[in-house]
Amino acid sequence: MEVEVDPWGSNLVNQDKIIKNFGLELLNAGEFEEPTDQMKRGVFFGGRDLKIISDAIRKNEKFYALTGIQPSSENLHLGNKMAVDNIKYFQDHGAETFFVIADLESLSTRGVSIEEARRRAIEIHIPAYIAMGLNPKKTTFYFQSENTTVLKTAYECSKKVTENEFKAIYGDNDPGKMMAAFYQMGDIFYPQTKEPAPTIIPCGVDQEPHIRLSRDLARKFKERGYFSPSSLYQKLLPSLSGKNKMSKSEPLGVINIPDFELKKKIMNTLTGGRDSVDEQRKLGGDPDKCMIFELYKDHFLNDESLEQVYNNCRKGKLLCGEDKINALRIMEDFMENFKDKMEKARSAVDKIKFARD
Amino acid sequence: MEVEVDPWGSNLVNQDKIIKNFGLELLNAGEFEEPTDQMKRGVFFGGRDLKIISDAIRKNEKFYALTGIQPSSENLHLGNKMAVDNIKYFQDHGAETFFVIADLESLSTRGVSIEEARRRAIEIHIPAYIAMGLNPKKTTFYFQSENTTVLKTAYECSKKVTENEFKAIYGDNDPGKMMAAFYQMGDIFYPQTKEPAPTIIPCGVDQEPHIRLSRDLARKFKERGYFSPSSLYQKLLPSLSGKNKMSKSEPLGVINIPDFELKKKIMNTLTGGRDSVDEQRKLGGDPDKCMIFELYKDHFLNDESLEQVYNNCRKGKLLCGEDKINALRIMEDFMENFKDKMEKARSAVDKIKFARD
Repeated sequence: MEVEVDPWGSNLVNQDKIIKNFGLELLNAGEFEEPTDQMKRGVFFGGRDLKIISDAIRKNEKFYALTGIQPSSENLHLGNKMAVDNIKYFQDHGAETFFVIADLESLSTRGVSIEEARRRAIEIHIPAYIAMGLNPKKTTFYFQSENTTVLKTAYECSKKVTENEFKAIYGDNDPGKMMAAFYQMGDIFYPQTKEPAPTIIPCGVDQEPHIRLSRDLARKFKERGYFSPSSLYQKLLPSLSGKNKMSKSEPLGVINIPDFELKKKIMNTLTGGRDSVDEQRKLGGDPDKCMIFELYKDHFLNDESLEQVYNNCRKGKLLCGEDKINALRIMEDFMENFKDKMEKARSAVDKIKFARD
Repeated sequence: MEVEVDPWGSNLVNQDKIIKNFGLELLNAGEFEEPTDQMKRGVFFGGRDLKIISDAIRKNEKFYALTGIQPSSENLHLGNKMAVDNIKYFQDHGAETFFVIADLESLSTRGVSIEEARRRAIEIHIPAYIAMGLNPKKTTFYFQSENTTVLKTAYECSKKVTENEFKAIYGDNDPGKMMAAFYQMGDIFYPQTKEPAPTIIPCGVDQEPHIRLSRDLARKFKERGYFSPSSLYQKLLPSLSGKNKMSKSEPLGVINIPDFELKKKIMNTLTGGRDSVDEQRKLGGDPDKCMIFELYKDHFLNDESLEQVYNNCRKGKLLCGEDKINALRIMEDFMENFKDKMEKARSAVDKIKFARD
């Protein structure tokens, strides 16, 4: 059996192939109220059961949005920002939001102790998510290791799945994988244990196996009235070299938040430039191959500015060096702004009461 | 692959075959200080790594004993008494004792809610164990669903086992089974997360797969200094019909504690009697086939009384009807005594502080 995505891996995946093979829906941004640039540009590109969510938004009906972090790292990067942007749209449009701190996963996959994961979550990840736009007042936060309802639900889910069903989704029956997957199920159904309602899970497409398992399980928990979870996948942000997905495994290819090597990284980013300045002035650059343009498109520029950059690049008016300096300024502004917000967010964290059931 | 015991099943198992095939040690009661009748009679018959425990007892060194209950039923039976007798010996000889209330298992295998399991544990199971001899002052009690160290350890264990290793022990990779097994691992290593020390797990031989997995894992957690868990298996008490193991699945074959149909059950118990009184007076009965004698041997009579019954039966002096009345009286005394102790035990339960990490 071919399993195309690996929720634990770090390779780039072919989005088109996945949409086709997994039978995902392409996101139709027009179906949603006030869609964001990222929704319109395919940064959030497809998912499952999106209509039930756009309907809930339009009709102002109860629905949940679920996100989380694995507090293993000491810093965040632009991929985290994309995840916040993805959930923020739903939160801004009425979702009751749940935020899991996957400390058990950090422990087992990275060897980060529960205590250290707690510290990192409280000092780094949660304030950073708030600084990037998550509204703590509309969010239920919890630690995976101390929420008994999640644990209970994980346990119950494990009884509802056969070994063959698991293997068909995940490719094998590895015990560690299984344990982690059922915890994810505990997280996914946690909001609905309070009261069943549509649930949107904005995430990377590498999480599709978990979404599929949760949808199979929702059918098996029919008597509880659980809704099949919906998903909206964000594209995988490429690294600055364009070779991998943006992740810690290619340190100079990732833009951290904050980033202390920003200039060096931006200056070394892959662009769609020509071999010489003269040539580029004559023939223009290729923004479609440019990782700086990718950053603009995924994160930083509105339609008007984006179009301007695109045209100026194509026409040879905007050279890569110049554009990199612009990009650096934009990102420095973002970082400065983030720093201020981060300071404010820390006091919000002190007020959070972590849910234990 | 043949898997001879099923920790979740309820069939009788062939103890001799298991000892041989699994390479268990036969219990040598003489190696232990002050061995009990049950140890000498093979009621507790074999296990793993028993010498490290008898040594710890002799040298007065730190060791743990671990037991637990699944609080799914509303009443206890003689099988529970045997489990208490098994652990009580170790507790009386210096073991720091841990007692897990497996509420997650009750939830997933019996559909008993966490709240209801808690109620049953507190009102029924824990006081009953205390009434039967468990010393609450030397015991750490905890609920599986709320102990974060157990959860954490379960999770860690799952990462250390391959799918093939699991299958070799349990026969398949059923997800529910896996989840439950790793929780058992969390329970088994819980005492050693405080400080590594030899650990004896007195239990039914149906738990042997869990013991084996824990011993494999102890080797993998070498850097933590964990000792391989030891086990002492109690025999499976046969039902009063002699056909099954004593369990709820044959309601009239099980002696509950307390039991409201005691007389009826005792009178219908399988004995080694002859077809007629005359014949029995002439030829004698066969105590080795008698389930009343089995009860005496496993639970109620000292060597002297046991021998007397045996001889009188063989000689035809003691008829089954008469003996059943004797047995009924012994068991009624036991039940009466239990009732009194149970009342006292309830107040001890109020003082228990359940461990959460």
